[in-house]
Amino acid sequence: MSLSAIDYPGPMPRWEPDARGRLQQAALGLYGERGFDNTTVAEIAEHAGLTKRTFFRYFADKREVLFWGSEALEELFVTEVGAAPESAAPLDAVTAALDAAAAVFEPRREGAAQRQQIIAANPELQERELIKFQSMAAAVAQALRRRGVADPAAILAAEASITVFRVAFERWTNQGNQQSLQQLIRETLNELRAVTTA
Amino acid sequence: MSLSAIDYPGPMPRWEPDARGRLQQAALGLYGERGFDNTTVAEIAEHAGLTKRTFFRYFADKREVLFWGSEALEELFVTEVGAAPESAAPLDAVTAALDAAAAVFEPRREGAAQRQQIIAANPELQERELIKFQSMAAAVAQALRRRGVADPAAILAAEASITVFRVAFERWTNQGNQQSLQQLIRETLNELRAVTTA
Repeated sequence: MSLSAIDYPGPMPRWEPDARGRLQQAALGLYGERGFDNTTVAEIAEHAGLTKRTFFRYFADKREVLFWGSEALEELFVTEVGAAPESAAPLDAVTAALDAAAAVFEPRREGAAQRQQIIAANPELQERELIKFQSMAAAVAQALRRRGVADPAAILAAEASITVFRVAFERWTNQGNQQSLQQLIRETLNELRAVTTA
Repeated sequence: MSLSAIDYPGPMPRWEPDARGRLQQAALGLYGERGFDNTTVAEIAEHAGLTKRTFFRYFADKREVLFWGSEALEELFVTEVGAAPESAAPLDAVTAALDAAAAVFEPRREGAAQRQQIIAANPELQERELIKFQSMAAAVAQALRRRGVADPAAILAAEASITVFRVAFERWTNQGNQQSLQQLIRETLNELRAVTTA
């Protein structure tokens, strides 16, 4: 008996090429058009040419379509902070992690911009986003402590880096901005330095 | 007809000396003993020697007992940022605001420590706290923009100052810590400077 047969009892579902991506694209389109609250899972599935059942194989609910990948991002941050050279200062270790994240996002600017607009229009989604970023900051602080960074430096470097990422990300998704996310992260980090040393 | 008669139709309530403070103290005690989820408004009122009706004249619900004053804190931050000398750099303006807040909290360390423990034990309360701090950061950024500070400096200085306040506040409520909140804010700010310039 194969693993998939255990995961999906009953008739084996038909394999749908890039079902997750199609569902995400359909969801972003509908949330943008009708608003998040006025869109149902059934409509998302229909627009993606898939079934509700397929939707729920990929996402727990319609909100999670927008936050899928945030665990992977957190994991990436933590891995990269851990992989920085032993000699790297806390902020250099987190900057390397932000760079790695920027490389992942760089080709997805349009989808990211669509997503930002949807979240900006909905306070409940903003709260969810805030909680996700808080979780990332806590994870990065923990990764810094494992490098031997003491508190409060660990928590301050982690919070500062997540703030820089959020601010740079928002600038990057602003219409008309031509800079890369990586450039914007560097620039925002330098602005933070200027603000704190002035 | 007096204003109070308009506010409270029906028989005039008996005036209860420091009803708000008694309700807060009773609530903190019960939340600490039984947990936030296992405490009712009726129990809080009873322990304070007051009625449920009196409770609801002061607080919207049992959660708000813990967050009462956060609007006042936000207002204090905004007022102080606005009142800083024109020549003050963004971070100096917000540091003046943090100092003013520290002076308000200084005599209330014990209650603050009790409150921190209750919040740390409850994810829903932590989310609420996070949202309140986010609102403060947004308000401080807005106050900085009114001083002519451009973005991203305004949002970065605001986020940095709220992070410093949160971290310093947590250190201040840690058992055994003898430093004043103001000292801890200065120290934490210097640590942030060290982290960002290293």
